[in-house]
Amino acid sequence: MKSSPVSKYRPFPSVNLPERQWPNRTLERAPTWCSVDLRDGNQALAQPMNVAEKIEFFELLVAIGFKEIEVGFPSASQIEFDFIRRLIDENRIPADVSIQILCQCREDLITRSLEALQGAKNVIFHLYNSTSPAQRRYVFNAERADIVKIATHAVAFLKEHARPLIAAGTRVRLEYSPESFTSTELDFSLEICEAVTDVWQPSAENKIILNLPATVEYATPNVHADQIEWMCTHLTRRDLTVVSLHTHNDRGTGVAATELALLAGADRVEGTLFGNGERTGNLDIVIVALNLLTHGIDPGLDFSDLNHIRETYERCTRMDVPARQPYAGELVFTAFSGSHQDAIKKSWEKQQPDAPWDVLYIPLDPADIGRSYKAIIRINSQSGKGGVAYILEKEFGLVLPKAMHKEIGKLVNDLADNLKTELTPEQIHEAFLDEYIRRAAPLALGEFLALARGHEVTCQAELFWNGERRLISGVGNGPVAAFVHALGTADLPPFKLLSYTQHSLEQGEESRAVSYVEVKTADGRNCFGAGIDENIERAPLKALVSALNRTLASKS
Amino acid sequence: MKSSPVSKYRPFPSVNLPERQWPNRTLERAPTWCSVDLRDGNQALAQPMNVAEKIEFFELLVAIGFKEIEVGFPSASQIEFDFIRRLIDENRIPADVSIQILCQCREDLITRSLEALQGAKNVIFHLYNSTSPAQRRYVFNAERADIVKIATHAVAFLKEHARPLIAAGTRVRLEYSPESFTSTELDFSLEICEAVTDVWQPSAENKIILNLPATVEYATPNVHADQIEWMCTHLTRRDLTVVSLHTHNDRGTGVAATELALLAGADRVEGTLFGNGERTGNLDIVIVALNLLTHGIDPGLDFSDLNHIRETYERCTRMDVPARQPYAGELVFTAFSGSHQDAIKKSWEKQQPDAPWDVLYIPLDPADIGRSYKAIIRINSQSGKGGVAYILEKEFGLVLPKAMHKEIGKLVNDLADNLKTELTPEQIHEAFLDEYIRRAAPLALGEFLALARGHEVTCQAELFWNGERRLISGVGNGPVAAFVHALGTADLPPFKLLSYTQHSLEQGEESRAVSYVEVKTADGRNCFGAGIDENIERAPLKALVSALNRTLASKS
Repeated sequence: MKSSPVSKYRPFPSVNLPERQWPNRTLERAPTWCSVDLRDGNQALAQPMNVAEKIEFFELLVAIGFKEIEVGFPSASQIEFDFIRRLIDENRIPADVSIQILCQCREDLITRSLEALQGAKNVIFHLYNSTSPAQRRYVFNAERADIVKIATHAVAFLKEHARPLIAAGTRVRLEYSPESFTSTELDFSLEICEAVTDVWQPSAENKIILNLPATVEYATPNVHADQIEWMCTHLTRRDLTVVSLHTHNDRGTGVAATELALLAGADRVEGTLFGNGERTGNLDIVIVALNLLTHGIDPGLDFSDLNHIRETYERCTRMDVPARQPYAGELVFTAFSGSHQDAIKKSWEKQQPDAPWDVLYIPLDPADIGRSYKAIIRINSQSGKGGVAYILEKEFGLVLPKAMHKEIGKLVNDLADNLKTELTPEQIHEAFLDEYIRRAAPLALGEFLALARGHEVTCQAELFWNGERRLISGVGNGPVAAFVHALGTADLPPFKLLSYTQHSLEQGEESRAVSYVEVKTADGRNCFGAGIDENIERAPLKALVSALNRTLASKS
Repeated sequence: MKSSPVSKYRPFPSVNLPERQWPNRTLERAPTWCSVDLRDGNQALAQPMNVAEKIEFFELLVAIGFKEIEVGFPSASQIEFDFIRRLIDENRIPADVSIQILCQCREDLITRSLEALQGAKNVIFHLYNSTSPAQRRYVFNAERADIVKIATHAVAFLKEHARPLIAAGTRVRLEYSPESFTSTELDFSLEICEAVTDVWQPSAENKIILNLPATVEYATPNVHADQIEWMCTHLTRRDLTVVSLHTHNDRGTGVAATELALLAGADRVEGTLFGNGERTGNLDIVIVALNLLTHGIDPGLDFSDLNHIRETYERCTRMDVPARQPYAGELVFTAFSGSHQDAIKKSWEKQQPDAPWDVLYIPLDPADIGRSYKAIIRINSQSGKGGVAYILEKEFGLVLPKAMHKEIGKLVNDLADNLKTELTPEQIHEAFLDEYIRRAAPLALGEFLALARGHEVTCQAELFWNGERRLISGVGNGPVAAFVHALGTADLPPFKLLSYTQHSLEQGEESRAVSYVEVKTADGRNCFGAGIDENIERAPLKALVSALNRTLASKS
């Protein structure tokens, strides 16, 4: 870097973890999920959601299957206070869903937050304070002991003042976050977490949630996992503790930091849909959940209609899901590369409904998240023959013989090169029709009569050559053979019919048939033709005329 | 997941690596970078770049500092062939930059690719074939030995037919990719890499590049690192080999997979700017490079004008850089949260120019990548007082006393709540002016005369109260004190002046001063006022009138 002061930055300290276990493990179950969309996500919007949007979003989160939802910071914002009151007063919270609220370690804010929670069935009271050396130095001008006291005092105050709420039937759990955990000395994070646990006194029925946030992502994700494993092995009441993660994405590794920290022993994950949140965003829970699914682990969240979820998210937050966002992005189930298209096509054809998913380049069946197969193959000038054949088959029911793929592929690539853009399926279909079906010069087929007698067919055909009408006739073991022999009498350059295939069209009128023929000219060129007709006898004859027209055109 | 067939997917196999070393290591130096923007990135664009755009992009990559640039697949596309010829024929390739071309393992394509490279100084000939069980089964219907033969035959053919090119002065290096490395059995990847190396016969001066692509990301990034470490420890000619990475982002962990694989021993990284590429994209090299910088490691790439790079990228590719993309996204150097804003402000004030970077929530000085400080604090209804004060100071030179932050913070939050949108700095400034400076009722100050004699000042002031003119006079140890005493004779509700501060305005006319005063009313309310005047004596008087107007307004 020419101009950048490299010396301004320092390596991130590594963790002394001689007995490190997490790299030996694999993910085996889903964590407990907690959505922070309505708090951490919402606070980072240029235009935060209004109450109606928040209610719609809350209901979306419930429908997806979240059982823990952070709904706001009621002591800091009247809007959030009012929203929480509406959720409770209008009985919008299912019995198995806990609402979580965030609160600083201050008596007045705790009191106000408890007012917001009156009448709720299950709440998680989330207290936090900042713990890192830089926060202590620059923001609080306080020593470690003072910081511990802020936390323990708040927890004691909460424990005391939550009694009426609990007596009235609310289940209250505590979540505590040392806010800048990843940049705090591990021994101090442990000290403050232990001190908070001492005050709260968790039980097997009411575990304490210790949330260890990467509020800013400073290290590679393996260091984050080391930090989490260190905490998991040093907490004295690990069995009474839910270890929770809250990663951000400043280094682009928030998903990895979460996954590796789950290997390291964490139980719970906080994040948002599509990674909304401050700066580079929170963890994208959709990705981690669907990553689990692709490894055969039930994530416990329902993303089977991801398009609907995305649409609701984009409308309520006024943010976009980027085109290359895993699973949800517009482009992620597409393949432009010819060899990728070919491999997808071949492996998809062989995919059995009950067999393990094994389609190349597509790690998840798009149907499992409500996305369509149609957009998968997209054609630009860099695409291959397989993709073009795939589009014609899937979109228009045209099953071209394999030997024909190269010819149509080159045709379509050249078109994309000329137009300098991606081609739509319709453009590809039109190119096919123009090249093979709509040619009527120099040859065109008029009337065709065939008389079958035993194994012999005699035909008479009306052929126009540059507009000039000729009647030709021939005999063969079928109408095509008879027509080939008739054409042999018409002073055309000699050719040989190599193959023909025919199928009914899957789309459009049931009765139409499409036929493909390949001919070889005397000078050694292979050329395909195609014909479509409601009369299944006539389709191959038109295909043959199409092929001959193409040999004549390419010769001249 | 209610409706999703979890049983359709399988866990990804783990790697047996009892002596695993990579989790014990930290990143210490930058890898060799190879841009594949013009090939892997370009092929995935709906509208691939034209030749002029490719040349502009190539020059951008050179200016950033890339020494290895994959420029196309010349045997598959005439456009790419022509582009490469132009680069060479027009002498556009610096002497220290190698161009790399991709080619399938086929004789005709190798021959054609060699034609494209005539006259180049330094080339990397990148051969690949697919190696995974699924590719062998579905696409090639071939056994392992056949797949090895495809690769070794191509390398032998290249070695033979590149001789004239080498004799003419071109330095030719070989890169070989087992294309589906991450889903290929490790022992088979090793076998084919060893076989290719046997044929090519690398030397210390001309090492072989073995590129081990995660063409599709199937596993957590630690498994990818295990695969790379396994290969690094098993290759028999590791010292003659450049181990190269090429990750994609299907599971959202492409950056992590690269970073952990660098810990595992890899030497070289292929990727694109901003992660362009098929499906979820290639590795975003910008992120990995700037991640290194934030740890004090010189990435060897110059992103000091990231806005320019982004603008060129977006124009040439017609793709957008998402708002939350690390380092480059529009929102990544912003903070909406009040406590974040407060911590950023406090730590930034204490940041010394030569000291290690230690600003909270901002892991990289935006100035180091040519981004501005201005956008960092953004104000919505969830933002705090610190952010508002920061904006007024940084944008308008108004250094409000700390005690005033809470009052202005609430004012601006309420405004954002009412407008239901983010506020611009201008809107915040206008709100400040409307509330503090432009009020002229019920009180307004007219003429003001002061006579200083020794330590005593006598003043006479013209005061308008609801438009009614009064003349008041007082004596004090300065003009403000004298005015306070004069006001005491005017039948106003009693008040006490608590503090006042004043500074010249940093922006605008140098001579103007701004003054802030805090008063306390008899019923215990604290209230601030502010005044701006070209006369530094008059500014605090106007501030006092502003404060009194606000106490009178809030009372009524």
